[in-house]
Amino acid sequence: MLLGSIEAGGTKFVCAVGNENYQIKDQTTFPTATPEETLKKTVDYFKQFDVDAIGIASFGPIEIRKTAPNYGFITDTPKKGWSNTDFVGFLTKTIKVPVFFTTDVNGSAFGEYVMSQLSNEDVDSLVYYTIGTGVGGGAIINGKLVGSLGHPEMGHVKVKRHPDDLDFAGVCPFHKDCLEGLVSGPTFEARLNKSGKDVPLTDPVWDIMSYYVAQAALQVTLILRPDKIVFGGGVTSEKFLEKVRRDFATLLNGYVHVPPLEQYITMPEISNNGSATVGDFALAKRLLRE
Amino acid sequence: MLLGSIEAGGTKFVCAVGNENYQIKDQTTFPTATPEETLKKTVDYFKQFDVDAIGIASFGPIEIRKTAPNYGFITDTPKKGWSNTDFVGFLTKTIKVPVFFTTDVNGSAFGEYVMSQLSNEDVDSLVYYTIGTGVGGGAIINGKLVGSLGHPEMGHVKVKRHPDDLDFAGVCPFHKDCLEGLVSGPTFEARLNKSGKDVPLTDPVWDIMSYYVAQAALQVTLILRPDKIVFGGGVTSEKFLEKVRRDFATLLNGYVHVPPLEQYITMPEISNNGSATVGDFALAKRLLRE
Repeated sequence: MLLGSIEAGGTKFVCAVGNENYQIKDQTTFPTATPEETLKKTVDYFKQFDVDAIGIASFGPIEIRKTAPNYGFITDTPKKGWSNTDFVGFLTKTIKVPVFFTTDVNGSAFGEYVMSQLSNEDVDSLVYYTIGTGVGGGAIINGKLVGSLGHPEMGHVKVKRHPDDLDFAGVCPFHKDCLEGLVSGPTFEARLNKSGKDVPLTDPVWDIMSYYVAQAALQVTLILRPDKIVFGGGVTSEKFLEKVRRDFATLLNGYVHVPPLEQYITMPEISNNGSATVGDFALAKRLLRE
Repeated sequence: MLLGSIEAGGTKFVCAVGNENYQIKDQTTFPTATPEETLKKTVDYFKQFDVDAIGIASFGPIEIRKTAPNYGFITDTPKKGWSNTDFVGFLTKTIKVPVFFTTDVNGSAFGEYVMSQLSNEDVDSLVYYTIGTGVGGGAIINGKLVGSLGHPEMGHVKVKRHPDDLDFAGVCPFHKDCLEGLVSGPTFEARLNKSGKDVPLTDPVWDIMSYYVAQAALQVTLILRPDKIVFGGGVTSEKFLEKVRRDFATLLNGYVHVPPLEQYITMPEISNNGSATVGDFALAKRLLRE
């Protein structure tokens, strides 16, 4: 069995082929240019292989409901030139194999879920957040991706403001001080006028960030009772998650049972941002089984 | 087929038997006294009938994981005398039929889900909140109750504080100003020193309440993308939900597609607090099919 993966990001595309054990056999990366150029490169890449199915984890927003007339499209994205792009249609015109189309963060969530299963962890339900240029989340419940009316947009919930952060307006163009507006990468520039990578973890802003991220973990804990919450993305680090665990414990106040926090609130098990590729392979493989 | 329902509330027990079409054939109500007295009455009631299975929707917290040593127990509840009560064990010692044990709000959620299905609504995923003495929530995703590590406790999430309500400490003994601490029935006494039923909907406190409840609806919309969100409980009314819909629309700011709000954010379809009874029947029936 040969499986394909397309991790379609706003900055770059990562295409890969792998086997049924999710081992990468070949991989290529190219920048995200115009849809025509980028999707042609994608098709040309997969023409070289005889893949049985392809999983796509795409930037969004995208239409994932099969019943929608624009299923398989990137819809009204802020990414210039990409609004209303028929991603799945363009691909399958040439590469005539089953395709599973989902969001980047859903792909990563599924990759981490699959890896937990392979590690014999008792994980049926998992939430994956990415905290980077934006904030997004995906969830697996009873082995299935969540989202009846479309994919989740977990980055845009409201949270209780930190007492030392009441004057910060937030950077989300749609909601100002939603979670993304308070903790995404660009908030460092907005709050401190420098890049997040130049802000040491001793800076109090990280405590403000962790207070908000801990509330996100609290929300999904109390709403979904998942087995595990994974945080990826450029803003996340193990040291930062130590703060998040501390604040989560304070906020939860022992109200419901959760696993030891080092296991419950974690970095991705799959290194080098590889979660989505594994997730794509696994989603493609599942298509072939159904 | 004869199905049993036990709606075990902190104030009263409602026991019922019904047929596979969820029609109630007999029903009784008695106050929640000691566990011994109340559960004996429950058993005595079901001894009169030849039920095939029973659904229980209980106040909590309860242990619903079948693998737990105290599965079927009401665990460390504030309800006096009821901590560590082996509810399922006591019942099935005498009434030897399959039992489905879940929370009161999960039972109501399932009842509303089943009713939506019977009404030919396209509902695969549904969230049910109760706002009364406490605040709780249950969710159905792809036809299944959510909760891998136990049942949800959606009432205890944090929300952004309303600018006119910053000084109110909140009434939750565990989390002060979580959702329950800000919008449950007892908050009327705490804020205004009178009962909620004596506070007209023109009072500004209802706008504060609706701002918080709209945030709860926003959270589950962005995390789960359900087909429908139902609000029950003594604090809820159609007029109050009009305010909630207004605030929800402002908060969401058109970010993701949702159905028309009158269909999306609704009162229970089943009248007279009957959602849990229908849910219990349906969960019992599903047990027999599995």
